[in-house]
Amino acid sequence: MGRGLFITVEGTDGSGKTTQIGLMKDYLERKGYSVVLTREPGGTYISEKIRAIILDPANSRMSAITEMILYAAARAQLVSEVIKPALESGRIVICDRFVDSSYAYQGFGRGIDLEVVESVNKAALDGAMPDITFFFDISPEIALNRRIEATGTDRIEREDMEFHMRVYNGYKQIALLNPERIRVIDSNRTVEEISKDVIGWIDRLLK
Amino acid sequence: MGRGLFITVEGTDGSGKTTQIGLMKDYLERKGYSVVLTREPGGTYISEKIRAIILDPANSRMSAITEMILYAAARAQLVSEVIKPALESGRIVICDRFVDSSYAYQGFGRGIDLEVVESVNKAALDGAMPDITFFFDISPEIALNRRIEATGTDRIEREDMEFHMRVYNGYKQIALLNPERIRVIDSNRTVEEISKDVIGWIDRLLK
Repeated sequence: MGRGLFITVEGTDGSGKTTQIGLMKDYLERKGYSVVLTREPGGTYISEKIRAIILDPANSRMSAITEMILYAAARAQLVSEVIKPALESGRIVICDRFVDSSYAYQGFGRGIDLEVVESVNKAALDGAMPDITFFFDISPEIALNRRIEATGTDRIEREDMEFHMRVYNGYKQIALLNPERIRVIDSNRTVEEISKDVIGWIDRLLK
Repeated sequence: MGRGLFITVEGTDGSGKTTQIGLMKDYLERKGYSVVLTREPGGTYISEKIRAIILDPANSRMSAITEMILYAAARAQLVSEVIKPALESGRIVICDRFVDSSYAYQGFGRGIDLEVVESVNKAALDGAMPDITFFFDISPEIALNRRIEATGTDRIEREDMEFHMRVYNGYKQIALLNPERIRVIDSNRTVEEISKDVIGWIDRLLK
């Protein structure tokens, strides 16, 4: 996958990943690296169009399999249009959510066979596996409370707690299955402590 | 796959498949069967939305892999929303183009590894393989001349002849690899001769 470095970031909303992505980017740019920041689902014109279909409430009849395949299609376009070219020109790519989100949400969350998720995503990735993935580990209850504090929402999210627990436990399983790639980051700490941990792992890879 | 019968029809535009689909449907309905006619890409609200993304000229940067996965997503929705429910209620489904189009156009036509096409479509089909597939076999040159006679077009289509030859030869390969399922129908004959052939095969399945 070229000469660059491919970093992905996973975790539920409220896990602090957005803050940490900003700190990673600042650190790497201060060190002189060229950093490309992107996110899923989306990140390209075509991927945003696909994202709009997934999120449109008019599409409530969408099957879980269709949703999973659409996420993979958006990913395939992001890989071919943004991630691969950036890595091939030696840049560092930080992607907010990537293939592990499909394992966690569509696999563990919606109950699609993990091998089915894997076979579709293998096509989408076309070889572009992350060099390192940070999973920001925080319990779904704490993450939800943080979101409620931040946004004032959300009764519906509370009802979805069972789903979020499946996703959370799924992430922990995926991390256990991929110990060389996935770093589980204890996110019940201060922003500074977490950032020091994350940057330590990145520094080890850059050496 | 339930108690119904699942028939798919493949072949280039100009192969006469639309006429034959109409004749199949008329024959089966006269015999008292309930027939569901559908087509790819499309056939559901969500699949049509996906189709619009594939066909939108604004999306010229779409990679071949993204396109292949999007066709599979549209197929997954058609399977879950139309084909499976119809078969489960004992109806006969006739689908104008199905998974073999992806092998022929995205695999042989655009050069995507057939195993990659297969792994993604295995997820999309979710077990819904056709009981019988008719490939209307006519050389791409003759099919093109028929289309030109019918529509007055098309210089661009002529330029694509190399692509259409790959697709055509791909279909013949796929038929060789699936001799129990795919019936190659010589379409250099009259409408009546072809229809007699097709209906003979269907009758054998219904017995």
